[in-house]
Order: sequence, then structure tokens, then C-alpha cells
Amino acid sequence: MNTPLDPLSLWTTSFVKEAILNFVADVTNEHHADFVPAADRIAVFDNDGTLWVEKPLLAELTFIKEQLQFKRGKTDGERLSFFEKLKDVCEDAAQTLLSEAKDLAEDLLDGVTIHEYEQAVKEWISQALHPRFKQPYTSLTYSPMQQVLRLFQQHQFQCFIVSGGSTDFIRPWSGPIYQIDKPNVIGSSLRTKLVEKNKRLHLEYMPIPFYFDNGAAKVRSIARLIGKQPIAAFGNSSGDIEMLRYTRQAPRSLACLIHHTDNEREYAYSPDSSLHFGKDTLEYAKEGDWEVVNMKLHWLEVFGQPQRG
Amino acid sequence: MNTPLDPLSLWTTSFVKEAILNFVADVTNEHHADFVPAADRIAVFDNDGTLWVEKPLLAELTFIKEQLQFKRGKTDGERLSFFEKLKDVCEDAAQTLLSEAKDLAEDLLDGVTIHEYEQAVKEWISQALHPRFKQPYTSLTYSPMQQVLRLFQQHQFQCFIVSGGSTDFIRPWSGPIYQIDKPNVIGSSLRTKLVEKNKRLHLEYMPIPFYFDNGAAKVRSIARLIGKQPIAAFGNSSGDIEMLRYTRQAPRSLACLIHHTDNEREYAYSPDSSLHFGKDTLEYAKEGDWEVVNMKLHWLEVFGQPQRG
Repeated sequence: MNTPLDPLSLWTTSFVKEAILNFVADVTNEHHADFVPAADRIAVFDNDGTLWVEKPLLAELTFIKEQLQFKRGKTDGERLSFFEKLKDVCEDAAQTLLSEAKDLAEDLLDGVTIHEYEQAVKEWISQALHPRFKQPYTSLTYSPMQQVLRLFQQHQFQCFIVSGGSTDFIRPWSGPIYQIDKPNVIGSSLRTKLVEKNKRLHLEYMPIPFYFDNGAAKVRSIARLIGKQPIAAFGNSSGDIEMLRYTRQAPRSLACLIHHTDNEREYAYSPDSSLHFGKDTLEYAKEGDWEVVNMKLHWLEVFGQPQRG
Repeated sequence: MNTPLDPLSLWTTSFVKEAILNFVADVTNEHHADFVPAADRIAVFDNDGTLWVEKPLLAELTFIKEQLQFKRGKTDGERLSFFEKLKDVCEDAAQTLLSEAKDLAEDLLDGVTIHEYEQAVKEWISQALHPRFKQPYTSLTYSPMQQVLRLFQQHQFQCFIVSGGSTDFIRPWSGPIYQIDKPNVIGSSLRTKLVEKNKRLHLEYMPIPFYFDNGAAKVRSIARLIGKQPIAAFGNSSGDIEMLRYTRQAPRSLACLIHHTDNEREYAYSPDSSLHFGKDTLEYAKEGDWEVVNMKLHWLEVFGQPQRG
């Protein structure tokens, strides 16, 4: 398979790679029993930890911390501990954390328009460097997953990001980086309000959560915003369990869990946050017949050219 | 303009028709100062009263009434008066009405999955007849507006429905009827919950409103779900004012208000509901330099072939 024409040339030969290639070949082959028309080729991708690096701290939280530091001169201890907690947030704890976040959100977003926020994200992402790899975050997308995106896009899949991170943090760069256009980015969001200034309408953020797109909420947002059954899903954490399970219910489907097993080239950590309880994600993967990507074994490289240079 | 090749052959020659054709010609002409790349050609359309008939009662409310009658044998007086009120709902009154609707929603939706609801809509829409025109509702889309949709689609616009009606009532038929695919339908919605039955996950409705997509909420949902500034908008009521105003803020834009002036071929009524207060919609249209479509004057026909046969 590792010929120059191999669309997954950055993947080692394995059952996982074979499963992805066979899935795409079969559902796009009109003469195959599992053929799916292009309009119904819905593929959903978690972002943090699935398409790009999420350790040591989510890029979005790093952005928020730095914005607050910039606004206030420094970040105090109480707030740092809040960000520590956020590292391991799961849906059960989200409500508490979001209420703690309220005054942070007020500091950061009071009177800020969605257009101003977009500019702030664009500026930050163009110059911020990852603390370990000393690369822009947008260079730290997983090149083997970029190959999966290209393979799917070339086969007329509609690819959506379905992220626990916020829509408005991802959209400013998802087009150039993933070739995923803004309407196809689904994530968490705050409430907004429409205000009139100088006879023009502006949307401003309110410091109130509107939707936290994680766990079962990912399935609810897929149904509400896409309205079709996904046939392929990629995730990496307990927050993706429901999305992977739901996707796997399609007659022919592909559910992939990216398992971070590579401390040398990236990070090694469990798909389960410390706050998670009950059956762990890898058990769901086994029961549900998901593909488990062992990053260390299955990926010939983790990041693209810039990181290796 | 009324040659066989006229893409708006069902429109009489007028400034409105000219404005639509010039707008499309200019924003799709690479050499024109107002050129807009295909990815940013976002057009938003209200549904009820803009793309299809909404009188004497919204199709969705007729559907709900009939579903309740089917479930209960009959609809009692109190509930009928609720539907009467809904005929003229505006955002200010929505909260009260939605709380009144709670037990109705419970009756209709308790334990119903989104899949079951979709089937019920498909069955109803395939056989229900409009009380006056004795046609299926899907034959009562406005053929001149269908021409606008085709014109926009042929010029690589991304067309979205942005409706106060519910997403899940429109999606089952928007593809075949408007060539607008499910992800491009944005509307009101109820909360859902993910439940497990026989080891499979199902989404069930909860009798709690999640989002009422009308007025300023239309602009908020455009920003949250599309993430781009629309350059063209079509509406017909006070619930579309904010969407039309917001769209009109694009450097080159088209905002069209469909004014129902034709009691013979369709209905004649104000864009303002009886509950609306303050400046009326036609004043906004004048101030904002919107195109006002006078149905009686500007449309050679209202509905397509089946209605005339």
C-alpha cells in the first residue's frame, strides 16, 4: 500500500489503515452493497486531540489565558487553578466550571463583537507558539489525519468538525488549515445579543454559555445542525463516546479512536479524563468494534514538514 | 428580459426584477468591483410566506393540530384558541405561548424519536391538502421564488432557509422541493435527549423549547451556524426585519421583502402581525433600501403548474 499513490502514505500498514481505505472504497463504489450517495457521506471529526495537539493545555484555553493576561497585566492564582481544572473537564463538571467561568467571560467578552473576537483569534493563532514544539498551533495538526481529511474530501464526503471547543475559536482558521468551511464547524458557543450602534446591527457576546458541545451534546448537535446520520467519526476522548457509538449505528460505518501512545513524538495519555467514571473509553471501543489508532505504531509521522525541519 | 432564456421569466419587468438580476450578475463577475467569491455567496430565505403559502394557518401548525386530533380523537376549544394566537405570534409573545405549548408538546412528542417524527412529517406532507387550493402544500411554493433559488444555485450561492418554523418540519422535504439540503435548513427547535434502548442510542424530543428562530434570533443563528455575513436575504414579515437589515450591511447586498398583495391568486396581508408594535416593516424596507416585491404586480404566476391545471 505504501506506494507514492497511497492516499494514507503516512500510516503504517495495519488493520486500521486497511479498514479506513476499504470503508472509503466500498461506500463510494456504486456497485457495492454498502454504497452511500455523496449527499449522505457525512463524516464528523473531533478537533482537539483528534486533528491537532491538545496538550499540555488546549490551544483555546491558552488563548483565553493570554487574552486575560493582556487585559489585566497578569493572571492571578485563583484563575490559574480554574484553568488547571478545565484541563480535565468532562460534561458532569461542566456546569460548575461554566458558572465559575462567568466572571472570566465577562472580563474577556464584555461588549466584544463576534467580528472583534474573530480578529483576536486570527492575530493570536498567527503568532502563538506551542510551548514544547515551538511551532504555531496550526502546524501541529496531525499530518496522517490531514491525509484522512483529503481522502474523504476527494471522495465527496461532507466533513464536519464537531468539537467541545468553541465554534468561533476554530472557524477563523479551519478553512485554510483543514479545508473545512465555516458552516461545517460545530462547537460550543456563548449566547449573543444583537445590538444597534450608529444605526448598524452588531452581534455581541454575552457571558452566558449557550451550548457545551461534548458527550451526548455532540450527537444532539449533529442531529440539529446536520440532520443526517454520520457514517464516519473520529475522536480521541470520553467526550466522543456518544458520537462514535451513534455513528457506528449506520449500516456501514467507521468509528476511529485516536489513542495517544507516543510520549516521544507527541504525548501519551488516556482517552479518559480523571473526572470520568464508569466504563472507560477503550472498553467502548472494543465492544463497539471501533478502530483504535495507536499513534506510536500506526503513524509514520505525527506532524507535517515544519515540525520535523 | 422576458425571453425564453430569462431566468426570472415568471417575474414582470420591474425595478425589483432588475435589481435581483443585476445583483447576481455583479457579485458573480470577477471583473466587477462587487465580485464575491463563491464560498462567501451566502443567501438566506425565510420559508413561510416567502417560499411557500402560510395562510390561512401555517402548514406546521396544521400538521400539529391534525397530529393531536389523531392522538386524542379531537382538539378541544382551549387548544384551538392557542392555535389562533399562534397565527400572529411575534417574538415578544413567544415565551408566553411556548409555555402554554408545553403540555401540547408533551402530548405530541412524549417519547417520540427524531426518526419517528421525520416519518410522521413525510407521511403528512405527502397527503395533506391546503384547505383553499386543494393542493399538497409542497405544490404551493411560489414558482417565482423557485426561479430565484435556481438562479442563485446556478451561480454557486449557498442558499439557506432561516425559518421561524422548526427545522425538523422542513428538512424532510426541503431537498426535493427547494434543492436545499438538510444541513442548510436553520429553524426553531426543541431540546432533545439521547436515550439508550436495546443497546442502541436514540434521540428523543423533550417538550422544552431550545431555540425560537425569529427576529434577532435569526441573525444570531446565522452567525452561529453559518458564520458568514449573508449578502442576500428574502423575507416577508416583521420576524425577518433584523435578518434583512443585517444582510443589507454587506458592502453589496440584496434584501427583498415579499409583500402579499394578491387576495385573488393568494392572500393580501400586512408583513406586521397584530402583536407587533413600533415602526412597521414597510418603513424599515423604505429606510433600508430593500426591494419590495408586490406579489400582485411583480409575479406573473404565484404557484407552479399543478395549481393552474
